[in-house]
Amino acid sequence: MGTRFTRPVVAAMSGYVPGEQPQDRRYVKLNTNENPYPPSPKVIEAVRAAAGDDLRLYPDPLANALRDRAAAIYGLRRENILVGNGSDDLLNLIVRACVGDSDRVVYPYPTYSLYDTLVTLQEGEPVHIAYPADFRLPAGLAEARGRVTFVCHPNSPSGTTVAIEAIRALAEQVAGLLVVDEAYVDFADANALALVHAYDNVVVLRTFSKSFSLAGMRIGLAFAAPNIIEELSKVKDSYNVTRLSIVAATAALSDYAWMEANVAQIRRTRQRLTDELIERGFLVLPSQSNFVLARRPGRNLEGVYRGLKDRGVLVRYFAVPDLADAVRITVGTEAEIDTLLAALDTLPMHGVDR
Amino acid sequence: MGTRFTRPVVAAMSGYVPGEQPQDRRYVKLNTNENPYPPSPKVIEAVRAAAGDDLRLYPDPLANALRDRAAAIYGLRRENILVGNGSDDLLNLIVRACVGDSDRVVYPYPTYSLYDTLVTLQEGEPVHIAYPADFRLPAGLAEARGRVTFVCHPNSPSGTTVAIEAIRALAEQVAGLLVVDEAYVDFADANALALVHAYDNVVVLRTFSKSFSLAGMRIGLAFAAPNIIEELSKVKDSYNVTRLSIVAATAALSDYAWMEANVAQIRRTRQRLTDELIERGFLVLPSQSNFVLARRPGRNLEGVYRGLKDRGVLVRYFAVPDLADAVRITVGTEAEIDTLLAALDTLPMHGVDR
Repeated sequence: MGTRFTRPVVAAMSGYVPGEQPQDRRYVKLNTNENPYPPSPKVIEAVRAAAGDDLRLYPDPLANALRDRAAAIYGLRRENILVGNGSDDLLNLIVRACVGDSDRVVYPYPTYSLYDTLVTLQEGEPVHIAYPADFRLPAGLAEARGRVTFVCHPNSPSGTTVAIEAIRALAEQVAGLLVVDEAYVDFADANALALVHAYDNVVVLRTFSKSFSLAGMRIGLAFAAPNIIEELSKVKDSYNVTRLSIVAATAALSDYAWMEANVAQIRRTRQRLTDELIERGFLVLPSQSNFVLARRPGRNLEGVYRGLKDRGVLVRYFAVPDLADAVRITVGTEAEIDTLLAALDTLPMHGVDR
Repeated sequence: MGTRFTRPVVAAMSGYVPGEQPQDRRYVKLNTNENPYPPSPKVIEAVRAAAGDDLRLYPDPLANALRDRAAAIYGLRRENILVGNGSDDLLNLIVRACVGDSDRVVYPYPTYSLYDTLVTLQEGEPVHIAYPADFRLPAGLAEARGRVTFVCHPNSPSGTTVAIEAIRALAEQVAGLLVVDEAYVDFADANALALVHAYDNVVVLRTFSKSFSLAGMRIGLAFAAPNIIEELSKVKDSYNVTRLSIVAATAALSDYAWMEANVAQIRRTRQRLTDELIERGFLVLPSQSNFVLARRPGRNLEGVYRGLKDRGVLVRYFAVPDLADAVRITVGTEAEIDTLLAALDTLPMHGVDR
C-alpha cells in the first residue's frame, strides 16, 4: 500500500485495523478492558453542567484545573503533571520528544503493541527483551541501553506486576528515560508513583479509561520531573484535551471513592474468573489488572475467540505467534462473566485445538 | 533548555507558550478567533444526552457516524474523510505521514506558525515563500518542489483568500501533496473542497472550532482521496476523538443553518470593524475570515496590544519582525467591537509608535 506522498516507513506499516468497537452493542464486550461500571454520577452531572455556551471557547491548553486536582490527590506539584488525550497521546509525546533515527527503545515483550508502532514511526529501533514464563522483569533491560525503556505495569496482555523494587533498580540502571506505563495500576496492590519523587529519569503514566470508567473521554496523566514535563509540552498539540474531558477527569478525582468501590468489585470478580478458568483447564497467571490472560500452552485459541464471538461474547485474540495460545478477557460484571463461562462451556473442545 | 533525554531538535525548540486563554473571563477575548456566538442548542442537547454511562466505553476509532454525516453534507464518501482531534491533529498526521529528514515543506509566509513547528519536529526543511503585500498566492511555490505544500485559505493572520483557480493551478503543478487548510473558509465567499474530487494529491482541512462554535470540543475533518485517508489513519491515535466530540460535530452538521446565521452576522460585523479601523488610520486588507489584520506599516503595534490588554481587551500580537506592525483582531459581537473601538480611542498615540 502507501501513496507516493507518504514516508517509506509509513507506507510499509500495515493498514490501520481498529480494535473491535461494535457500535450496535450486541456483544458482551470483554475485549478492550473497559470498566463494566459507569463513571460516577457526579462526573456525569459535571459534564452536563459544563456542556453549554462555553464550548465555543478553546480549552485551557495546560488543563491546570485538572493538574492542580491531580497534584493534590497524588501528592505532587502542578509542574510534575502533563495532561494527555488519553495515555496513548502521552506515549506518543514521549517517543516523539526522545526518540530519533536509529535510537534504541527497550521493553520486555510481549507487551502493549503501541510501543512498536510509535518507535517505528520515529525510525527508532525497538528492542524486545522476552519476559520469562512467569512474567518477572527479565534481565538485560538496562544493559540494552535504550534511549527510552518502557515497563507496562501491570503488563498487558499478561495482567502481571513486578516488584516495585525491581522497577526502582531499573530506574537506577537505565541509561535514558524509564517510562512506567501504569494504565491499569489502580487494579493492583502497589504502584510506582513514588519513584517520580526520587528519580529525575522516571515518567509514570496513568489513564482515566480503565479504573475511572472514562474511556470515551480520552484523558491520561504523565507524572515526572518538571523539566521532563516541560520538554513533552513542547511537542503536544496546543489544545490536546477537550473542555469536557478536563471537567470529567477533575470531577472523577473528586469522587475517588466511586472508582475505588468499582475497583474492589472488579478485583473480586477477577478472582472468581481466574478460579473458573483454571478449573476449565486454562493456565491463568494471577492478574493485577482488570483482565486476565487465559492460556492453553501449545494450542491455538483463535477457535475459542471465534466461538465466543459467535455466541455474542467478544474477547481479545492476538494474532501473533507468541500469544496464539491465549485469549485476553476483560473482567466484566458478575453477570457478564456468567455469560462468558456459559458460552465457553458450549464450545466444542476441538475449537481449542485448531 | 532540554533534558539529557530529549532529541536535539526538541531541546532546541523554544519553550511552549500557550496562547492566552485566561480562565477567569475578565477579558473581551478577541485574540484566538473563537466564535462569539454559542453552538446550536441542538448540539448542547445532544451532548448532554450522550453524557451518560456510555462514557465508560471507547469512542468509535473512525467516528463513522460523523464521517457519514459529513459525507452527506459535503457530497463525498465516508472513505474521503478522516476525523481529527481538531484540525491541528490532522496537520500533525499529514506532516508525520509524509515528511522525513530534510524533506522540503513549502508554504507562503507569513501564515499559521504551527506548520513550522510540525516540520521542525520531523527534521524537515520549512521553505517560506513570501506573500506579496496584497497576499496573492506568490510565484515559486510549485518550483520549490515540496514534499508537502501548505496553503492556509483564508490565510491567518492576513484573513485573505486567493482565487480558487490559483489553488487549482497549484494542485496541477506541485510535486507532492497540496494541503489546503480551510479552518476559516465558512466565513469566505468560496472554498476549495471541489478540488478533492478532481485531484488525488489534494487534502482539504476543516475545523469545528470557528464557524461551528465548538473550539472546546476539538474536531477537525480532512477530505482527500481514499488512499491518502488510509495512510493518514495509520499514523493517528486509535481513539483520537472523544465520544462527546463525535456527537457534538454530528449534531452541528445537522443544524447547518445555525452556523450559517452566525457566519452571516460575523461577516456584517467584520465589514463594520474593517471600516472603523480604516477610519482610524489602520491598513486593513479585506478579510474573508472571522478576524482582521490591522496594520500601521513601519510602526510597532506591541504598545497597542498592551494598551488594549490593560483596558480589558485581548487581541493578538505576533512577536516576529514581519508582523510587528500589526495586531490581529477576532470579529466578536457588535457589543464587543464597540468595547474594542472605545478602548482603541483612549490609547495615547505614542502607543502606536513604540
